Amino acid sequence: MSKARPTIADVATRAGVSKGAVSLALNGRPGLAQATVERIIAAADELRWRPSNRARSLSVSKAFALGLVITRDPGVLSSDPFFPAFIAGVESVLGPNGQALVLQVVTAGEDEEAGYQRLAQAGRVDGVFLSDLRHDDPRIELLASLGMPAVTLNRPEGSSPFPAVLLDDRPGTVEVVQHLLDLGHRRIAHVAGPPAFVHATARSEAFTSALAAAGLEPVGIEGSDFTAAGGIEATRRLLALPEPPTAIVYANDRMAIAGIGAVQRAGLTVPDDLSIAGFDDSELAEFVHPGLTTVRADPFGFGEAAARTLNQLIDGDGEVADVELPPARLVIRRSTAAPASHGMLEES
Amino acid sequence: MSKARPTIADVATRAGVSKGAVSLALNGRPGLAQATVERIIAAADELRWRPSNRARSLSVSKAFALGLVITRDPGVLSSDPFFPAFIAGVESVLGPNGQALVLQVVTAGEDEEAGYQRLAQAGRVDGVFLSDLRHDDPRIELLASLGMPAVTLNRPEGSSPFPAVLLDDRPGTVEVVQHLLDLGHRRIAHVAGPPAFVHATARSEAFTSALAAAGLEPVGIEGSDFTAAGGIEATRRLLALPEPPTAIVYANDRMAIAGIGAVQRAGLTVPDDLSIAGFDDSELAEFVHPGLTTVRADPFGFGEAAARTLNQLIDGDGEVADVELPPARLVIRRSTAAPASHGMLEES
Repeated sequence: MSKARPTIADVATRAGVSKGAVSLALNGRPGLAQATVERIIAAADELRWRPSNRARSLSVSKAFALGLVITRDPGVLSSDPFFPAFIAGVESVLGPNGQALVLQVVTAGEDEEAGYQRLAQAGRVDGVFLSDLRHDDPRIELLASLGMPAVTLNRPEGSSPFPAVLLDDRPGTVEVVQHLLDLGHRRIAHVAGPPAFVHATARSEAFTSALAAAGLEPVGIEGSDFTAAGGIEATRRLLALPEPPTAIVYANDRMAIAGIGAVQRAGLTVPDDLSIAGFDDSELAEFVHPGLTTVRADPFGFGEAAARTLNQLIDGDGEVADVELPPARLVIRRSTAAPASHGMLEES
Repeated sequence: MSKARPTIADVATRAGVSKGAVSLALNGRPGLAQATVERIIAAADELRWRPSNRARSLSVSKAFALGLVITRDPGVLSSDPFFPAFIAGVESVLGPNGQALVLQVVTAGEDEEAGYQRLAQAGRVDGVFLSDLRHDDPRIELLASLGMPAVTLNRPEGSSPFPAVLLDDRPGTVEVVQHLLDLGHRRIAHVAGPPAFVHATARSEAFTSALAAAGLEPVGIEGSDFTAAGGIEATRRLLALPEPPTAIVYANDRMAIAGIGAVQRAGLTVPDDLSIAGFDDSELAEFVHPGLTTVRADPFGFGEAAARTLNQLIDGDGEVADVELPPARLVIRRSTAAPASHGMLEES
C-alpha cells in the first residue's frame, strides 16, 4: 500500500483533540465526555486507523495470546464442526509460536461486551478474532473503542477499521444449485442456518438467487440451527409438504448427514428418491454412505489465515491487507443424482 | 475429610528445609539444588499436599482463567469429538463466572514442558486440566514442581497430588461385549485408539477381558488413531481376514460411523452381515442409519465436573475430593443384531 498508515496524531487532528485524548478513548479509559469519545472513534474509523503494536505498547505489554469470544451456547463447540476446525487452524499457527488461544463463551448483550472488555483491559490477549458476524454488529465499534487489534472473519456490513479474512460461501452454494439443476431437479428446498448470522443468510441468499436465475422458486426454506436434531426436524417438515422436494441443500454437513438418516428411516433411498447436499466437507462427509455431495469450506485454513493476519497486525507496523481465501467449492459425491422418473414426469 | 489439609510447613518439616525453600521449589523458581527440589517434591507428594489459593497468593494474583494443554496434532480438535464436547462443558461453567479457557496445543517433549511453564510462570491461568493421561506421565511431577493447581481426567498410574475426575470407560465396554455375546456373536474384533493413552488401553483391556470371561479370544485387534480415515482402513483389514468378524467394537464413534460406511460400500449390510458398535454416543450416532449402538460417555458432563473441581481447588482451602461420574453406559440401537445364520452354523 502506498498510502502511509494513519497515526494517532492523524486521528487527533481530524477529531480536534490531543493525542492523549485519542489514546484514552481508543483504550477505553475514563476521563472523556461521551461525545468526545464518539467523535474520536468516528475519526479513527473514517481514517481506517488500525491499532498497531506501537500504539498498544503505550498502555499494555504483550500477552502472547489471542482471543476468541464465542457468543453462542457452549454446545456449539461440540455440535458444529466449524469452531473445532477453525480453532485447530488457529492453534497450528499459535502452537509453534508459543502463543495461546484464550477462549471465552458468553451470551449476547452485556455479557458479550464485558467479555471483550475483560480481554482488553486485563491485557490478557494481544488481539481477537471476530467470528459469527451479525447484522449491525455492535462489536466493531466496541473493539475500536477498546483499541483492541482484531481480524474479522469475512467483512462486516458497515465500515470497519480491522482487516478481514475472506472466504466466500456463495460461489460453492451457487455451484450446488447448478449441479442439481443440471441433474434435472426442479423441486429444490433449503435447510438454512440461524438467520442472525451473516454467513447463514449469505448461503440462503446465494441459494435463492441461483434458483431465481433459472426461473425457479424454492419448494421450501426451513430455518434451522446447524444441529443434527434440527436437521432431522427440518427434513421431516420438507418431506411432509404436499409437493415434497426432489433435492435438499443443507447449510451444513451435520444437518445433511442427519437428513440422510431421516430419509433412509422414512424408507426412502438417497439419492434415488431424494438428493442431498451439505456444506463444510467435514471429515465424515466422505465416509458416510452414500458419500455426501457438499461444499468444501476449509475452516482449518480459515483459522490459519486469520491467526497469521492477526499476528501481522500485532507485530508489524505496516498496513495489513485483507486476505482473500479461495472460495468454497462444490465436491460431488454419491448423495446427489438425477431425480426419479415420476419427479420428471410431473414436471413435463 | 477429617484429616487436616497438609500445609507448606508440613512439607518443609518432612523435607528438612525452610518454608521459603518449599515455596521456591513448588513455584519452579531458581536458587535451589536439584536434589533439594526433588526432595521437596517427594515430600509434597507423600503428604498429598495440594496447592491452595493461599499458597498461590504468595506468588501470583488471580488470572480468572483455566488452562488446557493438548499434546496432540491440532487436527484432533476437529477430528475427535471428545475435545470440543469437553471444552463446551468447561465453558458452561467458566462462561457464567467470567472466566476464560486458555488453550495451548503443543507437541510432546520439551514443547509440552515449556507450554505448562509458560502458563504457570506468566500467571496466565489459575489452574490446568490434565487430559490424555499417558503411561508414566511426566506432567504430574512437572505441575507439582510448578505449584500449579490441576485436576486430572481420570487417575494417573503413579501417585498424584491432584484431585481426579473419574469417568470409567470400562463397564460400558464390557456391556457392549456382553450385548454382542448375548446376540450370539463369537467372532468379535476391536478397533482400538492410540496405545499411548491410558483411556485407549483401558477400553482395549476391558474388551479383551470381557471376551476372555466368556472363554473367547478377539478375532483381531487393530490399532488405529480415532480418525474416520483410520477407522475405514482398520475395518478393511478386519474384513479381509480369512475368518472375518461378525461384529466389530470401535474405540470411538467416528471410526465406527466410518466403519458403517466402509461395510456398506463393500456391498454388505449393517447389522445383517456385520454388527457395529462405537464409543462416545456423539451427536450423529443417533441419527446415522442404522443408528449406532454405542457407549455414552458424556464428555460435556466430564468438562463441567472438571471445571467445578478445579475452581473448588483454586478458591477453597479445604481438601478437594475426587469426583466420580456415572460410568459410561451401553446404548443399544439398530447397528447390532444377531449374526447371520452362516456365522451361527460355523460355530456349531
